[in-house]
Order: sequence, then structure tokens, then C-alpha cells
Amino acid sequence: MNLEQAKQIVFETIDTLFHLNAASALMGWDMQTMLPKGGVADRAETMGYFGAEQQRLLTAPVFLEALSVLKEAGAELSELERRMVVVLNRDAERLRKIPPERYRAFHVLVAKGESIWREAREKNDFELFLPTLSEIIAMTREFIDYWGAGAHPYDVLLDHYEPGLTVEKVDALFHPLQEGLVRLLEMLKGGKAPSRAFVRGSFAVERQKTLSLKISEALGFDYTYGRLDTSAHPFTVGIAPTDVRITTRYFEDDPFSSLFSTIHEAGHGIYEQRLPQDLKRYGLMSPVSMSVHESQSRFYENIIGRSFAFWTYATPLFAEAFPEVFAGVDAEDVFRAVNIVEPSLIRVEADEVTYNLHIILRYELEKQLFSGALEAKDLPEAWNASMQTLLGLVPPDDARGVLQDVHWSSGLFGYFPSYALGNIYAAMLYEALRRDLPDFDRLVAEGEFAPIRAWMTEHVHAYGNRIDPLELLERATGRAPDVEPLLRYLEDKIRRVYRL
Amino acid sequence: MNLEQAKQIVFETIDTLFHLNAASALMGWDMQTMLPKGGVADRAETMGYFGAEQQRLLTAPVFLEALSVLKEAGAELSELERRMVVVLNRDAERLRKIPPERYRAFHVLVAKGESIWREAREKNDFELFLPTLSEIIAMTREFIDYWGAGAHPYDVLLDHYEPGLTVEKVDALFHPLQEGLVRLLEMLKGGKAPSRAFVRGSFAVERQKTLSLKISEALGFDYTYGRLDTSAHPFTVGIAPTDVRITTRYFEDDPFSSLFSTIHEAGHGIYEQRLPQDLKRYGLMSPVSMSVHESQSRFYENIIGRSFAFWTYATPLFAEAFPEVFAGVDAEDVFRAVNIVEPSLIRVEADEVTYNLHIILRYELEKQLFSGALEAKDLPEAWNASMQTLLGLVPPDDARGVLQDVHWSSGLFGYFPSYALGNIYAAMLYEALRRDLPDFDRLVAEGEFAPIRAWMTEHVHAYGNRIDPLELLERATGRAPDVEPLLRYLEDKIRRVYRL
Repeated sequence: MNLEQAKQIVFETIDTLFHLNAASALMGWDMQTMLPKGGVADRAETMGYFGAEQQRLLTAPVFLEALSVLKEAGAELSELERRMVVVLNRDAERLRKIPPERYRAFHVLVAKGESIWREAREKNDFELFLPTLSEIIAMTREFIDYWGAGAHPYDVLLDHYEPGLTVEKVDALFHPLQEGLVRLLEMLKGGKAPSRAFVRGSFAVERQKTLSLKISEALGFDYTYGRLDTSAHPFTVGIAPTDVRITTRYFEDDPFSSLFSTIHEAGHGIYEQRLPQDLKRYGLMSPVSMSVHESQSRFYENIIGRSFAFWTYATPLFAEAFPEVFAGVDAEDVFRAVNIVEPSLIRVEADEVTYNLHIILRYELEKQLFSGALEAKDLPEAWNASMQTLLGLVPPDDARGVLQDVHWSSGLFGYFPSYALGNIYAAMLYEALRRDLPDFDRLVAEGEFAPIRAWMTEHVHAYGNRIDPLELLERATGRAPDVEPLLRYLEDKIRRVYRL
Repeated sequence: MNLEQAKQIVFETIDTLFHLNAASALMGWDMQTMLPKGGVADRAETMGYFGAEQQRLLTAPVFLEALSVLKEAGAELSELERRMVVVLNRDAERLRKIPPERYRAFHVLVAKGESIWREAREKNDFELFLPTLSEIIAMTREFIDYWGAGAHPYDVLLDHYEPGLTVEKVDALFHPLQEGLVRLLEMLKGGKAPSRAFVRGSFAVERQKTLSLKISEALGFDYTYGRLDTSAHPFTVGIAPTDVRITTRYFEDDPFSSLFSTIHEAGHGIYEQRLPQDLKRYGLMSPVSMSVHESQSRFYENIIGRSFAFWTYATPLFAEAFPEVFAGVDAEDVFRAVNIVEPSLIRVEADEVTYNLHIILRYELEKQLFSGALEAKDLPEAWNASMQTLLGLVPPDDARGVLQDVHWSSGLFGYFPSYALGNIYAAMLYEALRRDLPDFDRLVAEGEFAPIRAWMTEHVHAYGNRIDPLELLERATGRAPDVEPLLRYLEDKIRRVYRL
């Protein structure tokens, strides 16, 4: 096989993978938003087939031969082609080690998992979910054995969402993060707690939806290439940059929850819509890592969406939609109300400080699950004990405890740290962005989000998967991952909100 | 390759085709109901890939070898296996003759076609649609050349939707049909025309939807395995028998249109949901032909949905939903109002008599398109001239003329005759069904639709694709296709509605 033939095989495989991924992504979205209840089993089989087919393509002998021809070609390749080889090789190595029938079975299992989890959460019945969860954990452990555990069995799962990430590196960030957070929680006890008492009433879902659409669009999510739907757990799926779907969920008694979920997912969605289409050919039209993805969602949700400047912009919109509650309310009041720091049960509803403790909880539990120190059946108890330790609360039921998140039902072990890393990266990016856009607050207050979006596109989105996450961060911020910017940002926020 | 190996290859191919078809079907549904406008081009490429992949599988040398091993095995195979071979061979022969790059290009083209048509219809702009339509026709002509034209170039297109169908056979039915219809139209001039004047007002879409859901469910469409959505042109897609999606469209000033569309699609949907799942393995879990499919939709829409008995059942439901119009209205009045026979512009809104003339119009135009007597650009003029001849009307614009149907934009040439054949078959099935269920009217009037659905399942749905359509019809009704039952049924209806 000569170089040109090898390239052709690789480019064709990338094209095919794009189409298979697009179909899988659509099926995944559909399962969580549209699929009739009775259709889950057949859909799971079909998703299993697609998972298997992706593996088959990336491990086909002719493809692996082509890949090794390209690897040997080295300097004869362009920079993009060399990066393409690195990324494909990483994926192929991962997939090559799993027996195809096990890989397919795993895809069928996790495709069914989401609907079983959803029912278990609705019924507050952990036992209903336990057999599926146990099987997902057992298969994940089996896969770790195929891959070969690193220093910690959990490392290989972390690596999946952020190449190169290990328990050692996460611990090195999470330990000072936790210390800093505890210090902040101590600090705010001396402050003046804001009130949410004025946010009382019934907030029509249709109006919440109109606000979500309007604000997410203003932030830069483009509905010509996207949708907003409703699901049990908000998520984003990028079928292609021209077809990015976000979801949220509505509560009649809370006008903020749906908005912050929408803004969070819009942050993901903007990234997906702005991926560089000229890298499609090289299979690099994809996000660089899940942590960087979360840096975008958390940046939009919190750094923009929970800023005073944002509520200068958004309070009049709320006053228009819900005059009975928001007419005459100051931006400052809303700003303070959406920034109350208080230990709570549900991660996605948590404030910016305690949110990270929710992540640390999941991270510690996952480490134990894969070191073998914890079994699925013991998760509710371990969860509740950790909640007590970290947040001083015990969930009154599993629906508001161990059953609250969709991730484990989809086999996404190793994903949760991305959220806290995302917060860390978002704060780093924010410091860099403010240097380039010193009038950030004015832009936000005036609803002029385009320059901010453009900065993120230039420094994050436009790379696609052309470089590794830490290099991206280094180029954008000039530094390695570091919790200080996040702790500084949070301290500033708390001082202002709690009038310290 | 021995027999067992050959079987394994064929069964695996069938399994893979099921999954590819499921994904394609979902993508097709999504395109017409959910896809963001900007996502059409990428989606079309992905659908092109899936079309190509289906062709690749059915024409792969190893598959064709397996198929010929099975063909030679003859009597060693079970009856189902022999049927499987016949059906697969038919598909493979068709696909083998089209160059892969042309087949893929056709799939991309028709995937884009629907959204271009939709826009053209909305804007009443035939010129916007013309380039795409011309290209679809040119490619269809090219494919006919690959396949080799029969006695008439259009035969091979008819055969696609009803194996064995030819222009000669359709003409032999449509000529006496047309004569009979003209006679009926003449006859009713002597009758007392019913009035629709009482159906005036604004009918809230939400209530129409509630009625559509309730009635389609009562008829036998199972929402555990299905959905009802909205689209520009109502359609049904069976992703699997466990996931069947129907659509309708709502008009605020007409409470019947959405219901009849829903019932029509529910007739299709019930067929798809009742396909025999034990035939999946053999690739025979599919409808026997599109004409038989239409016999189900037209049976439910008209023979049930436009019967006096049905309105005995449904009038109280309408009175409950829209009391301001239907309270105190007699079933007889509604029955007559939904059976007014009158030439009109839109096929899907047409009465049962003139409906068939709409089909004959399309059939004659399609014959001319593929004999070369007509070009795409001349379609509006030819359409309007035929409307004048057959129905005595000239469309005021193309949106209500040549642009009204979705079919051509999806490359579905040869499909339209299925609707009139469906009417013919439905009337034949109805005569047979009444012999077995003499209290049909009572059942319908009482909303007891289960025995009727069960009869259809036994005589139609349960076969899947195990036998050819004419054999199915022969077994169910004891006769070959014949227009007399339809003409008898229509004459009875007219005599009653027009009090002749």
C-alpha cells in the first residue's frame, strides 16, 4: 500500500465515521426526547450495531495498515495529517483491545440504561436501576482490564474524556480546590446573605421557553443550525456543526432553572456550531476534550449568566415576561438571588462554590468503584455519607441523591471531573479574555455578546481537535491548569454578593 | 461456501440492513419534522451514505455468492428461507445495475429535495423547485435505462412499489375505474347535496390534536410504540414495529382535515406496528406492497372514517371538543358533510369519488414523463390542463396544483397509482370483512374497533412480506384485483349521502 492509497483509505474511513456518528448522535438525542417508550429495546440494538460498526471500521486490518503507512511517512505528511494520525491511532488503540461482541453488548446496555435510569429516578427506586448499573460497572471494569490499568485503574477512564488526564493530576487540582472552597464557605458566613423571597409565583413554561430561546440566541447559539427541546436531564448533542441540539427542563415554580440549563447547554452548543468545518476531512472537527467543552458551558452559565452585568441585561427581559414578580426589581437583587451560596442536594442546581464539591463527591466515588473499594449496591449509602461530609446534608431520597444524574446510566464514568476542570479552565480563560476585552462588563450589560463569542471561537472553538487540551489552554491563557483564577473569581463574586 | 455459511452471511446482512433502515427511517422522519433548516445539506450527505451502504451490502460479492448458494439449495430451504431468497434477489438485482456513485448521488439529491419542495410550495414558486425536480427526473430516467425498460419505461417504477405491476395492468383497472367514476358523478347530480355550512368557526389545534390522538388510539394505533407529530405533508414511518411515527397537519378553520389525515396515517401505522416480528430474521418483517399499505390507510380513513356508523361514534366526541359547533348536531349531518362529492384542488382533501381522478391525473403525467412525452418544466401547464379535463377545475396557483404533493421531491415516481389501487383493494377487503363480521356497523358505531383490526391483522398485516400482494388479496378476498367492489361501495355511499 503506497502513501496515496493509505491516505485515501483513511480519509474515506473518516467520512464514514462522520456519518455513523451523525446517525448515532441523532438516535441518542431521539431516545432522550422523542422515542416512544416501547421502542427502547429495538433502538438499543440498533445503537449497539452502530457502536460495533465504528469499532469495526477503526480496527479493520486495511485501515490499521493504512494508518501505519501514514505513521511511517512522518515528515511527508502535513501538520494536520500528522495530528489526524495521532488522534485516529489513539482511538484505534483503545478499540482494538475490546472484543467486538463485548463492545457491541456494552453499547446495547448503555442505550437501554438511560430509560431505565429515568424510570428509576421518577419512581425514586434505586433497586430498579441497580441491576443495570451493576452491569455497566462490571463491563467498565472488564474494559479497564483489557486496556491495562495505569497507576490507578480509573486513569484510563479519565484519559477518555481528557487525553493524558490521571488521578494524580486531578488530585493535584482538586485538593487545593477543595481547601479553597471550604475557606470561601467559611468566609461568607460573615456576610449578608441575599434573599430569594421575591421570586415567588407560577412561571408559565411557554414564557420560560421564550426567554430561553431569546437569551441563548443573543449569546450566540444559532437556531438556524440548532434546536431547543425538553428532556429529563439537560444535554447537548452535536450531530454536525449545522445541526446542534440542546435541551432544558422547566419548573413552574422557578424561572431560573430552565434558563441556566439552557445557557449551560448553549455554551456547549456554541462550541459545537463553531467547530471548524475545514477540519472535517481530517476527523478533527471535534472538541478537544470534555473539560474544555465544560469550560464553555460553565463560562456561559456562570461567568456570564450569573454576573451582575448579565442581570443588567436580563432583568428587563424577565420584567417583561413575568411583570407580576420582576417589575420594579433591581438587577442587583436578581444578581444576588441567583448567587446565593448554600449547600444543596442537586448538582445542576447548585451554586458556583458548592457545585465543585458535588463533583469531588462523584469523583471520589468513581475512584472507589474502580479501585474495587465500592460496589454498586453500596452507592446510595456512600453517596449519602459523602454528602454529609462534604456538604453537611443528607438526601431525603435517592431521586435527590444517587439517582439524580444521567451519566452512569450511559456508562460515562470518568466524565464528572470534566465539570470541575471546566470551571477551572473557564476562570483561566476569563482572566485572559478580560485582558483582551477590558470592557467585558459593558458588553454583557448591553447584550453585546458577539465579541465575547468571537474571542472564544478564536481561542477555543476554532482549533477543533488540532491540539491537545493543555496546549490549547497554554496558548489561550499562557499557563498550565491552576485553581487560583477560579478561587479568585469566586472570592470576588462572594465579596460582592455577600457584601464583604 | 457451504449452505450454513451462506445462511449466516445472509442472516447477518439482513440484521445489518434492519439497523441501517432504522437509522435512515429516523433521519427521514427527523428531516420532515425536527431538523433545523441549516442542517439539510449535511443530513442529505449522511442519508446518501446510508443509501450507498445499503446498496453496498446487497451487492457485495460475498453476499451475492451466499445468495446464489441458497438459490441452488432450493428444497433444502424452509418456505420462509425460500421467500427470503426471492425478495433479496429482487432487491439485489435492482441495485446491482446502478453504479454506486450514481446511487449515492440520487440519495443525496432526494434527501435535499423535500426541503426545497417545502419552501417552493410555501412560496408558491415552481421555478424554485424546477432544477431539483428536473434532476430527479433525469436521474430516474437514467436508472430506468440501467434497469432496462419493459413494455413501457414506467413499468419498472411501478414494479418497485408493487412487484409485477405494469402500465398494462394499471390501465386495465384505471380505465373501467374512470368510466365508473364519471358515471357516479353524473348520477349524483340528481341527488340532494349535503351541506357543510354548519361547520364554521375556529377549531383550536390542541383540541384537534386531542381528538386525533384519542380516535387513532381507539382504532388500534398503539402510542406505546408510536408518536403523532406535525409535518407539511402527513406521512408514516415505521422505524421498527415498536417505533412507528405518524404525522398530520392542522387547519384552524377545519376540524376534519387533521382527523382524516391522522386516521389515514394510523391505518398505515397499524400495519407497521402489526408486522410479524418473527419474520425479522428473514427480512420479511415488511409490508407486501405499497398498494396493500394504502389499502389499510384508505380503509381506515374512508371505509371506517367516513361511514355513518363511525360518525355515530365520533359525533359525541366532536360535540365534547367543540360544543359551540357540534352540540346537538346529528351524526347523519356530519356523515353527509364529510362525504360531499365535489371536484376540488387538493388530492389529500378530496372526496372518495374524485380522489381517484387525482391519482389518474398523476399516473398519466408520470407515464408521459418517462415515455419522454413531457418535461419537468412543462408540468404546471400539463397539470392544469389535466385538472380541467378530469375535474373541470384550474388551480389558481401551483401551490394548489403541481406543487401540492411531496412525492416527486423524494423521487417517488410510480408511487401514486398505489393510492387508487389501495382504494380498489380496500373495497375488496371490506366486502370480505363484512362477510366475516356482519355486525361491522354496530362495532364501528360503538367504537369497538378491535375485531376489525384483528381481521386486518389476520388477513393482511400478519403476512409481512411472506407472499406477493396479489396472492394476499386472493387469499383474503377470493378474487383478483377488480374495480367493481369499489364502484359498488361508492354507489351505495352516494345513494345514501345524496338520498338517491
